[in-house]
Amino acid sequence: MSILVVGSVAFDDVTSPSGSVKNILGGAATYFALAASYFAKVRVVGVVGEDFGPQQESVFQQHAIDTRGLEHAKGKTFRWGGSYVDNLNEAKTDYTDLNVFETFQPRIPQEYEDSEFLFLANIQPTLQADVRRHMSRVRLTGCDTMNYWINRTPGELAETLKLVDVLLINDTETKMLAHQTNLPRAAQKVLAMGPKALVIKHGEYGATIFFREGAFGIGRHPFRAPALPIEEVKDPTGAGDSFAGGFMGYVASQKELNREVLKRALFYGGVMGSFAVERFGTERLQSLTREEIDARFQIFRELTHLE
Amino acid sequence: MSILVVGSVAFDDVTSPSGSVKNILGGAATYFALAASYFAKVRVVGVVGEDFGPQQESVFQQHAIDTRGLEHAKGKTFRWGGSYVDNLNEAKTDYTDLNVFETFQPRIPQEYEDSEFLFLANIQPTLQADVRRHMSRVRLTGCDTMNYWINRTPGELAETLKLVDVLLINDTETKMLAHQTNLPRAAQKVLAMGPKALVIKHGEYGATIFFREGAFGIGRHPFRAPALPIEEVKDPTGAGDSFAGGFMGYVASQKELNREVLKRALFYGGVMGSFAVERFGTERLQSLTREEIDARFQIFRELTHLE
Repeated sequence: MSILVVGSVAFDDVTSPSGSVKNILGGAATYFALAASYFAKVRVVGVVGEDFGPQQESVFQQHAIDTRGLEHAKGKTFRWGGSYVDNLNEAKTDYTDLNVFETFQPRIPQEYEDSEFLFLANIQPTLQADVRRHMSRVRLTGCDTMNYWINRTPGELAETLKLVDVLLINDTETKMLAHQTNLPRAAQKVLAMGPKALVIKHGEYGATIFFREGAFGIGRHPFRAPALPIEEVKDPTGAGDSFAGGFMGYVASQKELNREVLKRALFYGGVMGSFAVERFGTERLQSLTREEIDARFQIFRELTHLE
Repeated sequence: MSILVVGSVAFDDVTSPSGSVKNILGGAATYFALAASYFAKVRVVGVVGEDFGPQQESVFQQHAIDTRGLEHAKGKTFRWGGSYVDNLNEAKTDYTDLNVFETFQPRIPQEYEDSEFLFLANIQPTLQADVRRHMSRVRLTGCDTMNYWINRTPGELAETLKLVDVLLINDTETKMLAHQTNLPRAAQKVLAMGPKALVIKHGEYGATIFFREGAFGIGRHPFRAPALPIEEVKDPTGAGDSFAGGFMGYVASQKELNREVLKRALFYGGVMGSFAVERFGTERLQSLTREEIDARFQIFRELTHLE
């Protein structure tokens, strides 16, 4: 089954306690697409500039990611610089140069219209809603957002949330969106805004999925997947998007959508996030095998499994 | 099997978003003893003042907790006031009146000397070490500490850590003790200081147990237990001590000490911690049944269990 992801493709400069890298391929859509590519056919809609060349293109090609929806515009690709010096859990943004991304208007190639799964990475909520409405045949839509849109465009975001099935955000974003510091209560408030399910990413503590009553025809009890305690965190950039890629990718690879599939998807999300942070940028996500992924899935399962 | 706990018995004033209470029974040894009493026979060593009367005594009696080691001294019982106004995860201490606790010297009644399990709640590390050396017949010693001792008496604490089997502390304390911000690496450094196992309590995210190579004759892979997302957190005071009580209590209730027992103990720790925070003070811990405890254990198990 095919997943369409709409979001940023970028060049990043990253500094962490493990070192510094410059001009590496990044962006939410890139991390998502690479992570999901181990499970399903992935199609990308985004925009890049003239500095995006065959070297970057080949990263997508090697994972059979369809880039016909990647618009090549005049100018430079979106650039982001961030550092994790004091806190590996939160990036300090050094600069953001939107460049060609500033005027990004997602255009969906006709060949993409039969996509059955859709992931709206973190972009302006109205653009997310437009894409969702355009993709009338999708079976399941996942969505990300961030504090910027939660604070600046709450009305637009509320409209988008009515159109998505699964919202994937972190603890802070959930509390901010719900104006509520108790996480399970915040989750209920967010679910009341539209999504059938809410995946809250807890970083090194894993993730929890909360369900709206009756959603997907399954019980509303939450489910939690742990994360692996990782000794070597080189670069946390893209962990959340890689999580989303693993989650959506696994869902897309399954015939049915039931509670057990969503539970496993949450584990696979954690698995892909944990791989992403082991190397700078997308390096680790580029070189995985499905065997390595499933081996780590088993480790995650063992991590909390009682006989 | 019997567990001896050495630690504080106190009167607390607590303010949280759910309200305020004054003069309620608290203290690490109290929370620990009540939580552990659902699993094993518990004995307490501590000190109280003249304001500790039959009403407080009856709380222990009703759970068949042996208080022959509770010294009654001239003066007032230890008093603590704290509030959780902005942050339910961390208390702001309003005041600490050590009172009779200031000169506390643990005295172990002869009847306690056959205790097979020992829990050293958060007191001065040298006192912990003295008790541990005195109790030569214990099979397993658990230990807590806090930032105050980690920073002020690191040498004394290091001596104590050589004598304990399981150290139960939180994320911040682990990082502080190891001078290391990466949690799994910090865990390895702490294990190198002496304990066979380290239980790191993550609050609402559960807990992880790390093992020293070869400890208890089991593998060194860590194990993680989730916590239940709780909508109603009235008073987080004592959650960590209740966790320790559930953990140690379950271990003491089992014939063997193996990996599966320690895993289940971690779940029972989380269960008791989750009950403790539902009401102010020890109210919820006073009124539980083993059926309620096991029902919540099953919910915790389901929370992360893959078919």
